[in-house]
Amino acid sequence: MRDDFPRYLAKELDVADPLAELRDRFVINDDDLIYLDGNSLGRLPAATPDFLARLVRDGWGTGLVRSWPTWIDWGRRLGDQLARHALGARPGEVVISDSTSVNLYKLAGAALDATPDRGTILVDAEEFPTDRYILQGLAEQRGRILRRLPSDLDQGLRPDTLRAALDSDVALVVLSAVSYRSGALLDMAAVNAAAREVGAYVLWDLSHAVGAVPVQLTASGADLAVGCTYKYLNGGPGAPAFLYVREELQATLRQPIWGWFGQRDQFQMRSDYEPAGDLDRFLVGTPPILSVAAVEPALAVLAEAGIERIRQKGLRLGELIVELADAWLAPHGFSLASPRDPHRRGGHVSLSHPEALRISRALAAEARVVGDFRVPDRLRLCAAPLYTRFVDVWDAMDRLRDVAEQRSYLRLPATPSRLT
Amino acid sequence: MRDDFPRYLAKELDVADPLAELRDRFVINDDDLIYLDGNSLGRLPAATPDFLARLVRDGWGTGLVRSWPTWIDWGRRLGDQLARHALGARPGEVVISDSTSVNLYKLAGAALDATPDRGTILVDAEEFPTDRYILQGLAEQRGRILRRLPSDLDQGLRPDTLRAALDSDVALVVLSAVSYRSGALLDMAAVNAAAREVGAYVLWDLSHAVGAVPVQLTASGADLAVGCTYKYLNGGPGAPAFLYVREELQATLRQPIWGWFGQRDQFQMRSDYEPAGDLDRFLVGTPPILSVAAVEPALAVLAEAGIERIRQKGLRLGELIVELADAWLAPHGFSLASPRDPHRRGGHVSLSHPEALRISRALAAEARVVGDFRVPDRLRLCAAPLYTRFVDVWDAMDRLRDVAEQRSYLRLPATPSRLT
Repeated sequence: MRDDFPRYLAKELDVADPLAELRDRFVINDDDLIYLDGNSLGRLPAATPDFLARLVRDGWGTGLVRSWPTWIDWGRRLGDQLARHALGARPGEVVISDSTSVNLYKLAGAALDATPDRGTILVDAEEFPTDRYILQGLAEQRGRILRRLPSDLDQGLRPDTLRAALDSDVALVVLSAVSYRSGALLDMAAVNAAAREVGAYVLWDLSHAVGAVPVQLTASGADLAVGCTYKYLNGGPGAPAFLYVREELQATLRQPIWGWFGQRDQFQMRSDYEPAGDLDRFLVGTPPILSVAAVEPALAVLAEAGIERIRQKGLRLGELIVELADAWLAPHGFSLASPRDPHRRGGHVSLSHPEALRISRALAAEARVVGDFRVPDRLRLCAAPLYTRFVDVWDAMDRLRDVAEQRSYLRLPATPSRLT
Repeated sequence: MRDDFPRYLAKELDVADPLAELRDRFVINDDDLIYLDGNSLGRLPAATPDFLARLVRDGWGTGLVRSWPTWIDWGRRLGDQLARHALGARPGEVVISDSTSVNLYKLAGAALDATPDRGTILVDAEEFPTDRYILQGLAEQRGRILRRLPSDLDQGLRPDTLRAALDSDVALVVLSAVSYRSGALLDMAAVNAAAREVGAYVLWDLSHAVGAVPVQLTASGADLAVGCTYKYLNGGPGAPAFLYVREELQATLRQPIWGWFGQRDQFQMRSDYEPAGDLDRFLVGTPPILSVAAVEPALAVLAEAGIERIRQKGLRLGELIVELADAWLAPHGFSLASPRDPHRRGGHVSLSHPEALRISRALAAEARVVGDFRVPDRLRLCAAPLYTRFVDVWDAMDRLRDVAEQRSYLRLPATPSRLT
């Protein structure tokens, strides 16, 4: 079977890859390790350590409190870069702040408070847990109904299912553009248009989309969005998230956490809260500058590559994973747990296998391939285009086949750890 | 006048200072600059750059996603250290997470939701703005009354004022242990006892207290607290804040932002939100690890010094500021805008002057002394005990006197900048 797609063909794809040289923009000091988990935590950009060291030494150590004038707008400046290079949004519509969960709470809260006469929130039943939990809390606190739309674990939410659920009682729809588990990619423009017809807000979670697929927030008519910067954007562990609010909505929507970074003329320290007139009103407290800073050199790599080229390479990497899974892994009990059409997938591919948990452990421990496990029985594989070679995918699938064949994983514990 | 307290006496105090050698634990590469703004942003600990560099290179760069098992509990581990060395709290009661503002929202929201039959929130009318704004929002959203207690701008809240306002309709009292403007220090145990008599929760903002004065959360009977780690704790710009929930309250209180870090068995990704049984339920989203990390080497310096020794030195430094202000600055129109009794002050001293804004600017630009301005007419001076010498205070006050005498500040603009 292995001769169906010999390794030299993967090497040829690397030779022809216009993004190949960008691999050097990352710290890769263990060349035997194949990292297919960039959709969980992206790699360290090579420019980041010096960038951070300078910030710590000069900005904090020498500049001290006098550096705040350059720090205070950093989230806005990076937000504008992100808007331009990855989100198809306008200046002043995106800011880096807080965690994805807190941002989701702020924007979902804002949308609900703007629609007091509507009783329903729609969410994909398979939406990433924190989104569902945040919405469950908001629904309970504000006396709304959270309706979980049935969704296929592999194929994602069907457009029909959403359309059938949309009516004039719907206040808010929350969906991931790319599903965290299956990688299923939604048609954002179609969802936005359908929701607009019934007057509902759409809040997008772009955590698994941003930096992997071109997002067009303005052109697709998106209202609200949040997302991570530590996956395909390579901003570092727990790097602060972003939020997007369409310019036309900024003057009317108000979020529930009235912190001083959202206050007009913040340092006047006035008696009453009066929200800033622009995107700043969606901010709350003092941003964690070291973690914000690490997003800057990471975005520079994204800008250099260009999101369209990233997507093109990502499509081919994904197709290679699927082709080799069909040829080499299906005989060992693996099934594709993502849409088969590459244009309906984001940047990762899921495979299901009854022993996925133990296989993912054996893969990392014995075969030095890092993917990740997701309940109930999924192995997620992400070939992040900025630093993953076609030959890495070939080698990873080859090693995965060996693990499946030799069944050494049967010696490992099948009990979940705290992080699985 | 200057002979009243000759400079050599300040030098003698430094020779006798048991914490003097700890100054070397900080990066101080501009010895002519006198930094009296450690209550806004603390200095860079000398161990921090290497600590962060190792984390970035080894933890992120090499470890990649495999480092999460050591990162995920970091906020709890650091919280326990903070509890032990600075807060007088028990293990499992303190965690580092989010910003002070978001933490305040979570804990105030929890207290209000636990007291649905009580209509009033009490706050010091001169409380730090973000606290007042957050509470204003919560009051409006939950149909409560936010009552602002009149408070002296220099002396802080009078115990009588609070006692007179406490009745069985009070759900929550929010106060700073040390006032951000005057530095006035409250008797936490007395406030906690008075509030308990009427069944109200007290939520302390410890931002200007932690690391400057010994706080005894357990012994004083405190319910809830939040605070910064970037002031006296030297955790770096915008370092994540901490929150404290008394152990006995953890099983009953619930906070409004239901993120996945607050979920029991987080990675099981279950359908319904069920809050963790312990302090974890007050967490929300993925923590910004680089910014969390910087708190660790900073706490090591605090632990080495010991909070009691820090307070003792802080008292003497404050007394020196007041003594020299009386002798040298009162003739130039300055008045003490903090309690005169050192035991009623935290770690900083405020002076009022009609030209405080321009004087603070001239002081930094011409005399190389960094303090800070606060509306309406306050100059805040903080001699952080871990790295400030008595002779620094002497020199700073001497330079301030020169600025006041020569009135060169009259050439500077009197319009506030965004950050003043």
